[in-house]
Amino acid sequence: MMSTASFRALHDQLRRQVPWGACDRRGALGHLTAERVAAAAGEVRLGRTVTLAAPLASSGPDNPEPGARHMKRLPGEPSDVPGVSFAADQLVMNVHGDVDSHIDALSHVSYEGTLYNGVTTDVVTSQGASELSIDDVRNGIAGRGVLLDIPRLRGVSWLEPGDHVSVAELAAAEAAQQVHVGPGDVLFVRVGHRRRRAELGRWNVAQSRAGLHPDAMEYLAERQVAALGSDSNSDTAPSVVEGVAFPVHVLAIHALGLHLLDYLQFDDLVPACEAAGRWSFLCVIAPLRLPGGTGSPVNPIAIF
Amino acid sequence: MMSTASFRALHDQLRRQVPWGACDRRGALGHLTAERVAAAAGEVRLGRTVTLAAPLASSGPDNPEPGARHMKRLPGEPSDVPGVSFAADQLVMNVHGDVDSHIDALSHVSYEGTLYNGVTTDVVTSQGASELSIDDVRNGIAGRGVLLDIPRLRGVSWLEPGDHVSVAELAAAEAAQQVHVGPGDVLFVRVGHRRRRAELGRWNVAQSRAGLHPDAMEYLAERQVAALGSDSNSDTAPSVVEGVAFPVHVLAIHALGLHLLDYLQFDDLVPACEAAGRWSFLCVIAPLRLPGGTGSPVNPIAIF
Amino acid sequence: MMSTASFRALHDQLRRQVPWGACDRRGALGHLTAERVAAAAGEVRLGRTVTLAAPLASSGPDNPEPGARHMKRLPGEPSDVPGVSFAADQLVMNVHGDVDSHIDALSHVSYEGTLYNGVTTDVVTSQGASELSIDDVRNGIAGRGVLLDIPRLRGVSWLEPGDHVSVAELAAAEAAQQVHVGPGDVLFVRVGHRRRRAELGRWNVAQSRAGLHPDAMEYLAERQVAALGSDSNSDTAPSVVEGVAFPVHVLAIHALGLHLLDYLQFDDLVPACEAAGRWSFLCVIAPLRLPGGTGSPVNPIAIF
Amino acid sequence: MMSTASFRALHDQLRRQVPWGACDRRGALGHLTAERVAAAAGEVRLGRTVTLAAPLASSGPDNPEPGARHMKRLPGEPSDVPGVSFAADQLVMNVHGDVDSHIDALSHVSYEGTLYNGVTTDVVTSQGASELSIDDVRNGIAGRGVLLDIPRLRGVSWLEPGDHVSVAELAAAEAAQQVHVGPGDVLFVRVGHRRRRAELGRWNVAQSRAGLHPDAMEYLAERQVAALGSDSNSDTAPSVVEGVAFPVHVLAIHALGLHLLDYLQFDDLVPACEAAGRWSFLCVIAPLRLPGGTGSPVNPIAIF
Repeated sequence: MMSTASFRALHDQLRRQVPWGACDRRGALGHLTAERVAAAAGEVRLGRTVTLAAPLASSGPDNPEPGARHMKRLPGEPSDVPGVSFAADQLVMNVHGDVDSHIDALSHVSYEGTLYNGVTTDVVTSQGASELSIDDVRNGIAGRGVLLDIPRLRGVSWLEPGDHVSVAELAAAEAAQQVHVGPGDVLFVRVGHRRRRAELGRWNVAQSRAGLHPDAMEYLAERQVAALGSDSNSDTAPSVVEGVAFPVHVLAIHALGLHLLDYLQFDDLVPACEAAGRWSFLCVIAPLRLPGGTGSPVNPIAIF
Repeated sequence: MMSTASFRALHDQLRRQVPWGACDRRGALGHLTAERVAAAAGEVRLGRTVTLAAPLASSGPDNPEPGARHMKRLPGEPSDVPGVSFAADQLVMNVHGDVDSHIDALSHVSYEGTLYNGVTTDVVTSQGASELSIDDVRNGIAGRGVLLDIPRLRGVSWLEPGDHVSVAELAAAEAAQQVHVGPGDVLFVRVGHRRRRAELGRWNVAQSRAGLHPDAMEYLAERQVAALGSDSNSDTAPSVVEGVAFPVHVLAIHALGLHLLDYLQFDDLVPACEAAGRWSFLCVIAPLRLPGGTGSPVNPIAIF
Repeated sequence: MMSTASFRALHDQLRRQVPWGACDRRGALGHLTAERVAAAAGEVRLGRTVTLAAPLASSGPDNPEPGARHMKRLPGEPSDVPGVSFAADQLVMNVHGDVDSHIDALSHVSYEGTLYNGVTTDVVTSQGASELSIDDVRNGIAGRGVLLDIPRLRGVSWLEPGDHVSVAELAAAEAAQQVHVGPGDVLFVRVGHRRRRAELGRWNVAQSRAGLHPDAMEYLAERQVAALGSDSNSDTAPSVVEGVAFPVHVLAIHALGLHLLDYLQFDDLVPACEAAGRWSFLCVIAPLRLPGGTGSPVNPIAIF
Repeated sequence: MMSTASFRALHDQLRRQVPWGACDRRGALGHLTAERVAAAAGEVRLGRTVTLAAPLASSGPDNPEPGARHMKRLPGEPSDVPGVSFAADQLVMNVHGDVDSHIDALSHVSYEGTLYNGVTTDVVTSQGASELSIDDVRNGIAGRGVLLDIPRLRGVSWLEPGDHVSVAELAAAEAAQQVHVGPGDVLFVRVGHRRRRAELGRWNVAQSRAGLHPDAMEYLAERQVAALGSDSNSDTAPSVVEGVAFPVHVLAIHALGLHLLDYLQFDDLVPACEAAGRWSFLCVIAPLRLPGGTGSPVNPIAIF
């Protein structure tokens, strides 16, 4: 268990390493320079694309407030429109809902009275976030994606809920997979959440969830990672920090300005990596344009 | 004005050119082979990304049933979660709403009792589309994007509502822009809708709208285009076909199996093309994973 | 266990007793004549009003797709409106959701290819019910309400899930409570669902639920009841009829044209009845005006 | 034009007349004593019920963010449920949306930093109103309703947008209609909004709307009215008070604790009053049970 004081010290130390200045609103995406975007396109050789998102989840122990897609209009019904009829639907969903694949904007997390980079929480009103909203990422995130597969490293099918990924394991996974996480990479860490869910059924992820150890954020800062995604939500439950419930969210989003991608699915990606013989790829993440939004549902695409 | 009979003949002629067989469910995306995806990555040189989507539209004459993003939780309020607080929101929106940027699945259009490729309309029930849903495109669309800018060709700011783009103009735009639309390309046709909207204000697009002439679908079929996007919805209003309201939708989606992208915005893309000195780019389109969905909101990303 | 054939015979026998003719769309509300409405007002002596609805339910084992009320605007935030600010919210909910208090329109149930009174199911399209919608009850239901309290009769706190109320028990409750159910009455039958829920916690009501035995519908027909409400949904789970899942819904709504009120709460009503020394009252039910709706959330009010 | 200072003086004067004490949360409903509720039942003689609500409004110039009722399930489709199938729908709507019939809770209006009776605005958070919510009215409002028909008094079809009802006119309408508004009455004031809308079409009610003059609130206070409803929203647009946009809302809700009912429809009520030969009736208002809600859609029922 990490003490509250140690956590705050870690937070502040990470905060001091952020090089972007007081007016920055993009956070770690600053590591994703144009050169690195262009270089990432070199990852594409096979012309194969793979989704990193899961289907909109139905109700269950891990999704108590499920979204829904309803039909507004069915084809073949009487219609005002001559010569053609349309099927159409409506979408209702929580942007940050467990366990739907989504991206967190930098306005998502408040810690000790501020958002990322000291922005005051009152920029978020009932009308949305006037700063640090997901629309700041309207041009998308395109960069080199790297998947570190921790269950593969351990020789297990998944990490049990409550377990965490250490810094040492991230380094060991790099070595085992012969890939090096570097500046501007979008790092994906697999804990096997979706596989466990598929095999054992759904459980209350608010109470128990595998994730990263907060220490791992030092590694991400050092490697100058641009964004972090997981098939869990990156944070363990219960928390390993005294008095702070989502320490990885706080360190990643609030201290480092890292956009988090939660509840992705890597079960299509792993075999694609195996088939390609490598664990890196061009990754494109395209949040919806939701002005004021504190996040967005997403379907990140890996291209090999 | 094209007669209903001529339209049907055009539809059937296009239908006969589709080479994918009776079981096909991907339509013109079949033109986007792995080789072409891989080649499209070669378009990336500058490392610059640009959104092709517009912000979620508010209510107005062109959006009578606007979507909304509501706050579910504000930062800084009393919370059950120790040491951190979250901002979170909920999204409610029509998938095919004018004038929000979206992609149409092949189940969106019914013509003479069937969907694309003879699939019966009863695959779409109140529970969604069991075939031809947008989740068939879960792995996204990555390919070479090409923008043809018709107002630029004509030397005007925009096409007036009701006006249409002819085949000859598409060819002329290619020549003027020194770009050739070829097999597997994602074609974007700009009519200047967003610019007119920004300068003159909003109007009822259901009644008057610039778009493509139905003949242009022959050109798209011949060029083996993989998907078609527009800053309008590709169809003119009023229709130029007697008794058929959305002829381009019918020909593109129903006859050719072309996914349509409606109400995109190219006002960021045009200067990016100018700066890059070319009208082609890598384009990545990532629909949300909505099983059964007849479309999805999207934010297509152009990468130079 | 009642056989499918016996059930159909019971259904047809009830159907034959309905006196309203082939064009009727109001069903058993026909029993609620103006004279009976006027007489029901005589129930009011104390001037006390009591809700028969439960609060909008949150997510839980008995409500897998909960509704939500979100804030659209908070007071005290910067606003365009001079001199005043408003709090406002938005409502998203399933009309027939377990376990929210609601009324079923006569279009809610389809049995052997028709709705109530032989109306074909194709009157219900994606645009709603063009016949038998809840807007047919726009003027509300005002009549004498009678509560029969079955747990009180049995001397228990509640009926266990799966248990059912027999015809004999309805008659015995009348005798014990010294009340007679008669023509035009709105009958409420308490099984103690809400009390069990409050004391033992929530459970999956789709799988196990106390309710009425289908035979009880004969009693309701004979007594010429105008509408039926319960703190459960009137049907037991599992069903006591072979091959028919909601036999009371079918008999009540489809055969008799009885509007059902599901998931009411009587925990405020019981002490009010006790205080008043009687089990009848003026009852007013005011569905929202949802044209095409197959039901509505409601808050029935008892007035003593 | 009333000055801001005069308005504040009027507000404070009304505020001082409120007799309920510092802990009161029910406001003017305190005038609706049990005796008065019981007496109101004496209004029922004919046994006729009439809706005072309008159907859920579609999109238009007066309803830029319309609610919607969508089908979740259609009858006759393949279903998991044996022997029966259901039609079901979902409701999405703004609680206070123009021009849907609704009731305002006392938490709806904030003026000079407080809600009704000095309650601080921070009781309303993103989670709803912890005080003064509409669930405080869960037992409904049952009392004598009185309709004053101002267009009838003036011999016109409706009041033009921007026009207002004076105190003198309220008194004149009483005299002309031979009805006296007294303690505990629910007062309905007709300005003819719905009739104008039906005949001339919809217009932007945010900009121009007939309503009551703020002075009328003195009359309501003196008469000890329990609640106020209108076919408009009671306030004129533009406002007749300098610097205060909704003066009647402020005086009624904030100063007097009067629940307001907005955008009702009286086109069914007027002929019912004429047929009954009187302008008073039993009125029952049953808000939905929305804990934390700042209002609710309603369908008030008049019973003659």
